[in-house]
Amino acid sequence: MYEVEANIDDMNGEIYSYLYDKILNIGALDIYTQSIYMKKNRPAVKLSVLCKKDDLDKVCTEILKETTTFGVRYKQLNRKVLDRKIIKIKTKFGNISIKVAYYDGRVLKYTPEYEECKVISENFDIPIRKVYDEINYETSKYIKLISRK
Amino acid sequence: MYEVEANIDDMNGEIYSYLYDKILNIGALDIYTQSIYMKKNRPAVKLSVLCKKDDLDKVCTEILKETTTFGVRYKQLNRKVLDRKIIKIKTKFGNISIKVAYYDGRVLKYTPEYEECKVISENFDIPIRKVYDEINYETSKYIKLISRK
Amino acid sequence: MYEVEANIDDMNGEIYSYLYDKILNIGALDIYTQSIYMKKNRPAVKLSVLCKKDDLDKVCTEILKETTTFGVRYKQLNRKVLDRKIIKIKTKFGNISIKVAYYDGRVLKYTPEYEECKVISENFDIPIRKVYDEINYETSKYIKLISRK
Amino acid sequence: MYEVEANIDDMNGEIYSYLYDKILNIGALDIYTQSIYMKKNRPAVKLSVLCKKDDLDKVCTEILKETTTFGVRYKQLNRKVLDRKIIKIKTKFGNISIKVAYYDGRVLKYTPEYEECKVISENFDIPIRKVYDEINYETSKYIKLISRK
Amino acid sequence: MYEVEANIDDMNGEIYSYLYDKILNIGALDIYTQSIYMKKNRPAVKLSVLCKKDDLDKVCTEILKETTTFGVRYKQLNRKVLDRKIIKIKTKFGNISIKVAYYDGRVLKYTPEYEECKVISENFDIPIRKVYDEINYETSKYIKLISRK
Amino acid sequence: MYEVEANIDDMNGEIYSYLYDKILNIGALDIYTQSIYMKKNRPAVKLSVLCKKDDLDKVCTEILKETTTFGVRYKQLNRKVLDRKIIKIKTKFGNISIKVAYYDGRVLKYTPEYEECKVISENFDIPIRKVYDEINYETSKYIKLISRK
Repeated sequence: MYEVEANIDDMNGEIYSYLYDKILNIGALDIYTQSIYMKKNRPAVKLSVLCKKDDLDKVCTEILKETTTFGVRYKQLNRKVLDRKIIKIKTKFGNISIKVAYYDGRVLKYTPEYEECKVISENFDIPIRKVYDEINYETSKYIKLISRK
Repeated sequence: MYEVEANIDDMNGEIYSYLYDKILNIGALDIYTQSIYMKKNRPAVKLSVLCKKDDLDKVCTEILKETTTFGVRYKQLNRKVLDRKIIKIKTKFGNISIKVAYYDGRVLKYTPEYEECKVISENFDIPIRKVYDEINYETSKYIKLISRK
Repeated sequence: MYEVEANIDDMNGEIYSYLYDKILNIGALDIYTQSIYMKKNRPAVKLSVLCKKDDLDKVCTEILKETTTFGVRYKQLNRKVLDRKIIKIKTKFGNISIKVAYYDGRVLKYTPEYEECKVISENFDIPIRKVYDEINYETSKYIKLISRK
Repeated sequence: MYEVEANIDDMNGEIYSYLYDKILNIGALDIYTQSIYMKKNRPAVKLSVLCKKDDLDKVCTEILKETTTFGVRYKQLNRKVLDRKIIKIKTKFGNISIKVAYYDGRVLKYTPEYEECKVISENFDIPIRKVYDEINYETSKYIKLISRK
Repeated sequence: MYEVEANIDDMNGEIYSYLYDKILNIGALDIYTQSIYMKKNRPAVKLSVLCKKDDLDKVCTEILKETTTFGVRYKQLNRKVLDRKIIKIKTKFGNISIKVAYYDGRVLKYTPEYEECKVISENFDIPIRKVYDEINYETSKYIKLISRK
Repeated sequence: MYEVEANIDDMNGEIYSYLYDKILNIGALDIYTQSIYMKKNRPAVKLSVLCKKDDLDKVCTEILKETTTFGVRYKQLNRKVLDRKIIKIKTKFGNISIKVAYYDGRVLKYTPEYEECKVISENFDIPIRKVYDEINYETSKYIKLISRK
């Protein structure tokens, strides 16, 4: 995995949301920003993009084209990720996708898909917080069940 | 104008984008977040919402319902805003809306509408940065013209 | 309620944890910090303390004595808080305190007490994340029960 | 005292250092920035300026003229400041100005003037950190002396 | 040395203090967090842990078990550290441990142990800032003495 | 290229502006800071310096000497930079230096030199924002001209 970084101090903040979509569309694994301060009291933004080796060139070029920066820097990173599986859990809102992570074959953690929760929240007009609570409750029941076996 | 604030340290970060839309939809003027650190090394988020007096109750209730916070605080603020007008500028991408601000009757600054620039960028497949440059160029010409009169 | 603020740019960072305890001990409702940048590229910390009117003097004095700042500023804030009650929920770790908030007489949200979860996590040697999950599960069952009535 | 604020998301970061000087020159008491995040993933900067009532109009106008913002907001703040005096301390680098703060007539804290320390650091080619240490040492001796009386 | 990182956007902020202790207890050299912003306006926290090669596996596993993240990334870093020694300085509060750093055999900087200063501050009921001042004064005297030889 | 980092939690914020100058003077390519939070609620600053291999030793030593840190860490980075050229553009304020970046032989972006804009802003008493607008306008005209050939 590679991490590509650029310090940006003279770009309209409106452009970031558009930039995030563009960079993710060409295959980046993740993208995030941090606030930094450069010389001469300049508030700036450090853009970080995680990507696979095959996408490194594309990602660098896209950042150079779409932002005001004159150069990017990058480094290689190692990774350790949990095995994960998407399962479907039956809830009173219908079947929901849950991302489940395993460690040594046992369920370590799980999280419902945000986009599905958001749709439910809008359709049922319930705070999304409550949607998560209900789904986590149903998932807990299921996880208890399978870990008992 | 009122500013409503809440410190939130135990809410899923995925919820904010949904929250921003909800709060703006009920009439808030602006919404933003800042990173804060609370006691016991807790990274947290301070949510700030600007709204008119008439929307204060609605905004407070929405934050209490949609977030994990147990209380909000608010204060009154005064405001000084520039006169502003939306004008249309003819560019090679078509007519674009420009927000123009005046001070003592003279143009002080202007900015193209982000959403229109984004659509152009997608339709013409040009970096949004270049779309801004072109539109700013055409707006400059127009502003020079009217200020000469 | 009052909010007292001070910009601090020349204090050893080690002092904050000690300061948080001191300020909370004299009756402050909450305390938090934000990163700011002052003139001449100075990274600094804005300290904010929320307190009741009766504690305002004490809080101001304590900040002036314990930090390097030469002055504090404060303003009055209004507040809107949810009704709340501490209930006990029976879980496999024993009885746990849950802070429950109500809106119009109905349960709106709840959260287990952090300090109790931490003790359980240490005694049972289970990740605190799992302790929360289990307690939230039991609390969900209870809330479902009482809201059915 | 007043605090004037503006959220700025589309201004070149290079402008801030120039802006700080301009705003301080027209009489502001202090100026600082914080990183914020606005809707649609926009990294932005919240500019805060502290000023006296008489300078409020001038400060608002200057921010509207010099930045890209279309409006500012402001509120009144109360203040509690320590009595302070500039004294001269004799050190091996010459006489140095020390800002001394008093509480109930006794020395509470003191700090050497940064600009003088910087000049010494350059002239003597010593790390500024060491300049502070030496000056603090001499000031400690003096403070011990006067507090013994 | 290795640096292990994880972006965390859906974890209760209360857990960090507990996490810091856990990670330091298994041998990490240092741990810190930074505020970041991820796609879809998600405020998040980047956790960074510095550790030796031998502890890399343990640290990665602990982060995966104790936090909500589904993966960590890490990279190797080089280091340059000053020679350091703990000395005891006699002060009016008793003997205090001072961490002293050397460069080319000469004292470059020193700092009193925070935990000892905190205990003194509590026992003598003196602001910790004053405890540091007194100890720094005594240490200065000692350093002047040995550098004169 | 190398990136040198140090976490600093006990240094007077006034020192950073002086430090930036010192580090840039010995040949560093760039320098910036980020706010971090260390164990025990300590707000701190992460200092990052980018430099060439030949300057690595000098930069590490300077940070160790000028700051309170007891150690620095560093890693190698790769870089991808755009070809760039300084051109002169004739404006109503005189000839101004513009940094122009090329991609595949074509102009990709450009930016006027901040220091020259600042001088103009002071000499002509015009907001620097307006100086940038005028210069960008003239540069746009020029870029349109050469790209038409």
